[in-house]
Amino acid sequence: MHDLIILGGGPAGMTAAVYSARKKLNILLISQDLGGQVLWTLSVENYMGFTFIEGPDLMRRFEEHIAQFPIDMRIGEKAVFVGQLDNGFEVRTESGESYQGRAVILATGKRPRQLELPGEARLQGRGVSYCAVCDGPVFAGEVVAVAGSGNSALEAARDVASFAEHVILVARDPLVADEMLVDSVKRHSKITMLLGHEIRAIKGFDRVTGITMRDLVTGEDVGLEVAGIFVEIGLIPNSEIVRGLVHMNDAGEILVNGYCETNMPGLFAAGDVTNVPHKQIVVATGEGAKASLQAHMYLLRTELLAGALR
Amino acid sequence: MHDLIILGGGPAGMTAAVYSARKKLNILLISQDLGGQVLWTLSVENYMGFTFIEGPDLMRRFEEHIAQFPIDMRIGEKAVFVGQLDNGFEVRTESGESYQGRAVILATGKRPRQLELPGEARLQGRGVSYCAVCDGPVFAGEVVAVAGSGNSALEAARDVASFAEHVILVARDPLVADEMLVDSVKRHSKITMLLGHEIRAIKGFDRVTGITMRDLVTGEDVGLEVAGIFVEIGLIPNSEIVRGLVHMNDAGEILVNGYCETNMPGLFAAGDVTNVPHKQIVVATGEGAKASLQAHMYLLRTELLAGALR
Repeated sequence: MHDLIILGGGPAGMTAAVYSARKKLNILLISQDLGGQVLWTLSVENYMGFTFIEGPDLMRRFEEHIAQFPIDMRIGEKAVFVGQLDNGFEVRTESGESYQGRAVILATGKRPRQLELPGEARLQGRGVSYCAVCDGPVFAGEVVAVAGSGNSALEAARDVASFAEHVILVARDPLVADEMLVDSVKRHSKITMLLGHEIRAIKGFDRVTGITMRDLVTGEDVGLEVAGIFVEIGLIPNSEIVRGLVHMNDAGEILVNGYCETNMPGLFAAGDVTNVPHKQIVVATGEGAKASLQAHMYLLRTELLAGALR
Repeated sequence: MHDLIILGGGPAGMTAAVYSARKKLNILLISQDLGGQVLWTLSVENYMGFTFIEGPDLMRRFEEHIAQFPIDMRIGEKAVFVGQLDNGFEVRTESGESYQGRAVILATGKRPRQLELPGEARLQGRGVSYCAVCDGPVFAGEVVAVAGSGNSALEAARDVASFAEHVILVARDPLVADEMLVDSVKRHSKITMLLGHEIRAIKGFDRVTGITMRDLVTGEDVGLEVAGIFVEIGLIPNSEIVRGLVHMNDAGEILVNGYCETNMPGLFAAGDVTNVPHKQIVVATGEGAKASLQAHMYLLRTELLAGALR
């Protein structure tokens, strides 16, 4: 039985692993990859210590950090089940393995809802972005599209418009967003709204060069030359694995307190999979550290308790 | 009037500055130094992205990050007053200057309570440490002392004992700590407790070589050869400047919610000066980012509100 099983190898999970290893806990890290969402981030300019670094490069540095420690890892495996045991938790993976841990940190992140269009997957990190805060400055002086009709799409449009030459907000559905935010975007001289348009394809070979949209009123297809497209149609927390086990909000985010504790003792959560505000690498690393230190205190407390009862 | 005034130039304040500058806010950063408590941290092995870096080097990298942006800075100045205005806040500094901001982020950190002994200040970062989690691994195979009688001293002793050859816990006063924690330290084969001893001097020229203690029972002075001393007699939040303005806990930490909001709209706080658990660089950077993004949303909201009322 491991002291701690960490699910997820993004910034939160990797930081939790380093902090836990430094506490000499016997840990197991299970993740489909090391890097998570950052792997498909074009550039990172807001992780302190690096004025500019590409997402995958930063994650390689995180990996080097992890490699300093004898951490038991199952990379390429997907955890599909978390259940409670008398003295901890059981985690099962897609490949049929079963692992046991006295505590678990869930750091499985979020996945962006995708348009699921031709070209989208291939051009991720090559003009297709899911993070305006991260990648906005990269498109200085360019014309870019933002896809979406909610607050995050409008905020993304405004964020990107600080840098881009011009932003075209493409929305299939009527806007469902704060009125004041809608007003400010409507008044913005560098943003054009294109409502009632459905994006049908993302074009480009090794970089995005444009999109094709269908005008839902006329039924005609329209082309648009853009250097990038920000897809802001929502994020899905990877929290299905603990559904029914811990409290979540309507968005499916795991509810944690300021200590990264869920409602279930011994089960911690950190980063984007939780209700922590702001989806940022620095925020996720901070939360990962908190979860690890809190899990360490939990193990200590329960161990001492067990010791006292012997 | 600035959009935002950031008080404090440690990890939380510098991160808030970078995030706010990227949002193109007109900000002013006031701090006695750039780097804060990290400047006197011997080595940092738990800031993700750097497997090992000296505290001042990491802070220089943070500084380079800040230098990318046209941030208005007053370094070497100490803010001594924060007051509310109709449309924001006024900040006054020790040198008599007065600044105005529509929002304020307080990231002034904590200061360790010092022993205030001969040699202590001179040997900071040269064997005198105030952070067991940060510097513990540096003393692998060495004999070190830990000064203090509370939970944090006991936890520090145990942390350091994972690495050090031996740890001597020196306490002047009777232990005031969790009984189970006291038990576990008492049973620990690599920790010796020396109660009723008052440390009188820290010895060493360019590195700590030992301490002198007074045995409070016999009144005799005793020397002890150690390679380092961890001073764990408490931390003092630098929150005096907003006393009476925002809610604090008994320790003087500013109470914030998960969004780094204090009870006063427009006044945010981040990092060690707040009630956020775990005093770590990664945690502080995460909190600084949150405070900045939240302050940005606040400014946007109030600006839009002002716009709507025009």
